[in-house]
Amino acid sequence: MCVIDPSQEMTVRTSGIIKPPRKFAGVVIATTGLPARGKSQIAINLSRRLNWSGESAKVMRVSDYRRKRLELYASHELFQPDHAANSGLRALARRDAIHDCAAWLASGNTIAILDATLVTHEQRVEVFDYFYGQLGYRVLFIECVCDDPAVLEQNYEEIVKNSTDYAGMDPAAAIEDIRLKVAHYVQAYEPMHEKTYPKIKIDTATMEITAQKVTGHVETHALGILGSIALKPHTLYFSRHGESEYNVLGRIGGDAVLSARGERYAQALASRINSMHIPDLRVLTSRLRRTIATARGVEAPQEHVAALNELDAGVCEGLSYEEMQEQYPQEFAWRDQDKLRYRYPWGESYIDIMQRVESVIAELQQANNILVVSHQAVLRCILGFFMDKTPEELPYMDVPLHTIIRITSQGYNYKLEFIKLPIECVNTTRTKPKNCSPNRTADDALLTVPAHYDIPDPWRNPGNGPTLVQQH
Amino acid sequence: MCVIDPSQEMTVRTSGIIKPPRKFAGVVIATTGLPARGKSQIAINLSRRLNWSGESAKVMRVSDYRRKRLELYASHELFQPDHAANSGLRALARRDAIHDCAAWLASGNTIAILDATLVTHEQRVEVFDYFYGQLGYRVLFIECVCDDPAVLEQNYEEIVKNSTDYAGMDPAAAIEDIRLKVAHYVQAYEPMHEKTYPKIKIDTATMEITAQKVTGHVETHALGILGSIALKPHTLYFSRHGESEYNVLGRIGGDAVLSARGERYAQALASRINSMHIPDLRVLTSRLRRTIATARGVEAPQEHVAALNELDAGVCEGLSYEEMQEQYPQEFAWRDQDKLRYRYPWGESYIDIMQRVESVIAELQQANNILVVSHQAVLRCILGFFMDKTPEELPYMDVPLHTIIRITSQGYNYKLEFIKLPIECVNTTRTKPKNCSPNRTADDALLTVPAHYDIPDPWRNPGNGPTLVQQH
Repeated sequence: MCVIDPSQEMTVRTSGIIKPPRKFAGVVIATTGLPARGKSQIAINLSRRLNWSGESAKVMRVSDYRRKRLELYASHELFQPDHAANSGLRALARRDAIHDCAAWLASGNTIAILDATLVTHEQRVEVFDYFYGQLGYRVLFIECVCDDPAVLEQNYEEIVKNSTDYAGMDPAAAIEDIRLKVAHYVQAYEPMHEKTYPKIKIDTATMEITAQKVTGHVETHALGILGSIALKPHTLYFSRHGESEYNVLGRIGGDAVLSARGERYAQALASRINSMHIPDLRVLTSRLRRTIATARGVEAPQEHVAALNELDAGVCEGLSYEEMQEQYPQEFAWRDQDKLRYRYPWGESYIDIMQRVESVIAELQQANNILVVSHQAVLRCILGFFMDKTPEELPYMDVPLHTIIRITSQGYNYKLEFIKLPIECVNTTRTKPKNCSPNRTADDALLTVPAHYDIPDPWRNPGNGPTLVQQH
Repeated sequence: MCVIDPSQEMTVRTSGIIKPPRKFAGVVIATTGLPARGKSQIAINLSRRLNWSGESAKVMRVSDYRRKRLELYASHELFQPDHAANSGLRALARRDAIHDCAAWLASGNTIAILDATLVTHEQRVEVFDYFYGQLGYRVLFIECVCDDPAVLEQNYEEIVKNSTDYAGMDPAAAIEDIRLKVAHYVQAYEPMHEKTYPKIKIDTATMEITAQKVTGHVETHALGILGSIALKPHTLYFSRHGESEYNVLGRIGGDAVLSARGERYAQALASRINSMHIPDLRVLTSRLRRTIATARGVEAPQEHVAALNELDAGVCEGLSYEEMQEQYPQEFAWRDQDKLRYRYPWGESYIDIMQRVESVIAELQQANNILVVSHQAVLRCILGFFMDKTPEELPYMDVPLHTIIRITSQGYNYKLEFIKLPIECVNTTRTKPKNCSPNRTADDALLTVPAHYDIPDPWRNPGNGPTLVQQH
């Protein structure tokens, strides 16, 4: 049996012989297992993390293709293994997804994730022979198992809440329908005993992981990522530090203390968070004074993490935008041209921050009830990860001062809430100016700089002009 | 029983209560298993890869501490479990290693790797309670098992060849001694059935990996790394591309073709490698014309990998050092000040290359008989990894043109050989000048530039001056 109609094979290489896989060519990651074992969540989490580290990964979810072919979900009967028309429909949907995986890799992307059940040996052989044997890509199976009735019950409830199939259906009826759907799959199910295929098996109740024949940098990276995925619903809290004396002066970077208003925000944040009585709350801050001071009143264990420090502006640390334009007009223009990739001399870019915060993201993915107090650029990257932003969107995300940001998992997506606290503060967001040429005038370069006080830097030039310390 | 004399506890925090581990504090990775199961190789490989990605990891090998206390190894009798004095000596050595792990973490490093046998439940409890319970660090056990007699036999032979204990001993007698030593350990051995500790179990014959309670970014990273370690002896070959037309002109970067002498090197390289009849040879090149052309005649499957491209010189791509000094004197001086960390505007640094080649290193670690044809900076990084160089040494490593470099594993170290082919070429290595100030004169900046032709860049300014194409 051939999964793919050869006439539809597009530009991918085909030949009768089995080729050795190209080690740096594309990888297909295919999930296998009964419904409600966490396969989709694992697929989407893998995709997010792999994309974050510079790969180009995409999930092809067979159930999405099934919904494309049959818009209205009726009931579990669709999944009866002995119903020829329905089996055929599901095979077509699987074929669509496999086809798009091949197209994704053929156009130069690195990882295609096939989110499928592949409950029979025959289906897995087809996938392996097609991608590995015919197309020369590497294949990794991820087998999801779970026998814990309590975890399964929770998974059923999450699916009813979040799946399109059950939108508008009575929850009790929906859960009964899932049970019957799973029962149909159990009839056909052949657990994956194949010893010759690269495979990671994950028990999504205990999170015990077994790896067999896993080699290749993408596959071993995936193995590491799976260790840091937790599938339980969770809530995370974020806040920028309170307004700092550098914010007031319109200066970037540095290690300034909080302004008087920033101190008031720290108190308001602590009261608000403490009054929420969040169970087992933990706090992560950067190692800079303004985040540590902001979190000080929150009643929870606190850890100061260097990976949460603000983007390092290198030679521009502590400068105002006006000084940057005066001293480094070329650099200032380059940054406006490509804020995502631009690196300050001896400093960092947003891309660098994305890498630096990966360890924090790994920790947050498996944690619940953490408050992260950090900085604008760093929080843009972390929130962008959970909200599925593209790298290009990160440098322009809105992360206002004096606001608690809460994200709550909903299936594999997140709900985002802003809780603005009523403490005034400056605006620190400079939008992209129209003219980004290195030859632009200073006026053009400074057009979008937000209003701020204009005092010589008290930290760099103590005694030179009025110091802000006297303002307290 | 207390492993550590409290009076020796130095600056690490101690208290009677069990503290929750700080998630971003240090991690202790402790190996457990019988001798000759590959524990030391796994420890050193983990350490190299973790350090490479910016952690500060160090291996404390209990056998090294035992040799410090008892310089001359006599025989297997040292390991008899019922010999009180010898057991005591080994407990002291274990204590020394544990002590140094604590000191390493207390001075701000992130990962201590305890290379030990820890064959009894009691020993593992001690390690866990001390590091996790008393000091608040996270602990991960790595259990190495192997029941394949053929693999064990090979391991015994490797140990006899490479271990200090058996230097100068008759190989047959040495192997017999290892057998008896292992037998002593088997008497005391309690396989690790503890379910409550974070653990990765690895069967070093099949490389099957099982992970239990593995969370935390270091631990999950270690899990991924373990997937890409192979413990078999292996040999790898490296070469820079043949001399390019940019090398002749003293220009950096770009995508120039080979010079006439570079073409001759490509032929010589192919004859030499082909005449060696290396079994299952594979070739990796960068995606630039000069490496692809250099490897073209080698009779083996070839793959062109973007991660092997030369360091991106950004705005300086295609410039000569003279032009760089003229157009970007500040950048040129900054680079001389810190060649490891300096990033060309819109380009890369050596640190960036280290990250970029990690996928290639992961592949090379588990491969045998690969020829990598790449570029000066990239090969400095890859060879530096296997030769245990510090990051600071990388930018000044000697990787000459027109030379095959072969590395062969010896236990967990590598033997390095240069095979110089007799084809003349320019010298492309510019040593660090004495004056690295941004205010230096052009003469000072250009003092160490190697001799080269001085023709306007034929690729950037076609038709402007004599083109090198006419020289063929």
